[in-house]
Amino acid sequence: MKISADRIANIERSKIRKIFDRAPKNAINLGLGEIQFRTSKILIDYAKNILDNETLKYTPNGGLTELRQKIAEYYTINFDENVCVTVGAEEAIFATLFSHLNPNDEVLMPNPAFIVYDSIVKMLGGVSVKFDLDATNNFRINKKFFLQNISHKTKILILNNPSNPIGISFTNDEMDFIVNECEKRDILLIVDEIYRDLYLQNRPKSFLQMYENVIVISGLSKSHCMSGWRVGWCISQNAELIKPIIKSHQFICTCAPYLSQKVAIKALSLENTEIREKLRKNYDFARKFIEIKIPNLKIIEPNSAPYLFLKTDSDDMQLTEKLLQHGVIVMPGSIFGTNGKTFLRLNYGLEKNILQKGLEIIAKNI
Amino acid sequence: MKISADRIANIERSKIRKIFDRAPKNAINLGLGEIQFRTSKILIDYAKNILDNETLKYTPNGGLTELRQKIAEYYTINFDENVCVTVGAEEAIFATLFSHLNPNDEVLMPNPAFIVYDSIVKMLGGVSVKFDLDATNNFRINKKFFLQNISHKTKILILNNPSNPIGISFTNDEMDFIVNECEKRDILLIVDEIYRDLYLQNRPKSFLQMYENVIVISGLSKSHCMSGWRVGWCISQNAELIKPIIKSHQFICTCAPYLSQKVAIKALSLENTEIREKLRKNYDFARKFIEIKIPNLKIIEPNSAPYLFLKTDSDDMQLTEKLLQHGVIVMPGSIFGTNGKTFLRLNYGLEKNILQKGLEIIAKNI
Repeated sequence: MKISADRIANIERSKIRKIFDRAPKNAINLGLGEIQFRTSKILIDYAKNILDNETLKYTPNGGLTELRQKIAEYYTINFDENVCVTVGAEEAIFATLFSHLNPNDEVLMPNPAFIVYDSIVKMLGGVSVKFDLDATNNFRINKKFFLQNISHKTKILILNNPSNPIGISFTNDEMDFIVNECEKRDILLIVDEIYRDLYLQNRPKSFLQMYENVIVISGLSKSHCMSGWRVGWCISQNAELIKPIIKSHQFICTCAPYLSQKVAIKALSLENTEIREKLRKNYDFARKFIEIKIPNLKIIEPNSAPYLFLKTDSDDMQLTEKLLQHGVIVMPGSIFGTNGKTFLRLNYGLEKNILQKGLEIIAKNI
Repeated sequence: MKISADRIANIERSKIRKIFDRAPKNAINLGLGEIQFRTSKILIDYAKNILDNETLKYTPNGGLTELRQKIAEYYTINFDENVCVTVGAEEAIFATLFSHLNPNDEVLMPNPAFIVYDSIVKMLGGVSVKFDLDATNNFRINKKFFLQNISHKTKILILNNPSNPIGISFTNDEMDFIVNECEKRDILLIVDEIYRDLYLQNRPKSFLQMYENVIVISGLSKSHCMSGWRVGWCISQNAELIKPIIKSHQFICTCAPYLSQKVAIKALSLENTEIREKLRKNYDFARKFIEIKIPNLKIIEPNSAPYLFLKTDSDDMQLTEKLLQHGVIVMPGSIFGTNGKTFLRLNYGLEKNILQKGLEIIAKNI
């Protein structure tokens, strides 16, 4: 018996997970893309209240209407059929590509970028085309690199903004440029904005209102430390882009968990300053620590938490291995694309005393 | 802009959902495949305890190890890497077909059957081939019909056992016959056993131990009234069949919700007699009611809850419409396949007084 479909045969397990799985027990985790704080007590208490008073049943496939409205409100767009609630942003990315990408379609994406985009495109029989962000200029957009790779064959452009692994956001000029180039070629723009609410100074602008044919993806895993709750969404000004996603989402997993959807309504009703403040303090601490004690790591100035993308003098894969053996997990930049070579991604979203221990181990071993 | 991928273009929203969405407000729901009881208080209290004491984070992609072990234990197989925990049985079906089906592969399935199988096969570019269950013989397997449709081109056979919509299980002879025919042609057998624990007399035998190349799908949505929790699984004796599913599941939605997985561990540790008892009482009541007051509906003798598959004298679509207008949702048999024509599927998994009202409306209008 042939054991799997061809679409799976060439897909590796996530390299992030593979590194994580090889870590020694009790390793300090500055690697995975998870904020290691608890969900806020207000939300926990709210969840307990729902458990006592409601029946946890199937929701409509696209999500509870109240949640869909709340999400639309967050982006200040009128709610019609513009939102599909998903099982985290991951399912939003999968269902969006599954619903809009045909085999052999070209998908343009940055190098480096979140590694999942490339894997999903490949599984769906699409062709990933990558444009280099400018490593010599803090990973800003280089118009030449971009225009060399976009073409009338480009069906979809997928971006993350703010960027994972870099932690920076596009400038207004960059955003105008991107949207303009998509409009010219009638390209579907997918923007993963999962880190948008973890800004360090000001909330970056969303792509949502800039272009009719954009699908914005987000969720509460990062902003509200709700990774294990599995709730995310995709949204567009153009409801016609969301309808096929709701259709496929129904066959992928029926609906997102009831309790998580209920708690998401509450979460979106509250100011989310506490987690941002905590991350901001960790950022200040980690930055200072690195500048003083690990000066051979150069920081790319981020505007959103929880990542530092650090330039090293050496091979990032070897460095990651060495640190792993000393009990600290970080991610080598090159798993996010060739352009991330010699960089390390460090997640400072964990309790400060553990973060400090991790940084001290790095300082000693780098 | 072309608005969706070809794989979505020919897929309809679930016909079950469509009927449900057209129902008048406060209609009595004997239609959807959901048991309308609350999750048991023991599990609710356990969930609250987890919320107070644990951080709800990502789990390993394949699920919490303790849950995977518990699931393996339930089937009395040794646990190695044989289980993938999913977002309900729906995601288990999707991820299994996504991981094992190539475009143009033939998938054999019964007529009638749960409608999702056909939709997913089509979305993945596969070819659905249907064999009629014998409508003249209580929908048992007719070997002639089966052998006319199975061939060396059949890549996958997908069954539900106990059957949705019929509520019956295969006999040991039927199971032996099926497995034997799969073995001969090296066919991957996928069996959705989501209703297995809602038996009326004895728990039907699982296909799991009968064949190396079977993937069994199940979950807690039906057996433990945990539909909104979104937790299910797929399991095989042959871990090689599960590995590609874990790989694709990771890119589909990362992992099933943490809290639901934790509660699932607890659920699988308890005897589940209460829900079965309640369903059993409803079954006895509904059966008697129909035999006495709606004698023109003929019952196919089921061995598992919560469905009655009822032979009518008329067009099932028109009858469904008529009942909908009178405030009762039932499902027309023909949405489960041409072979379900003139039948109605009725779900008696709800509070008895509401069930009674629903049956009274049916008695008056049929």
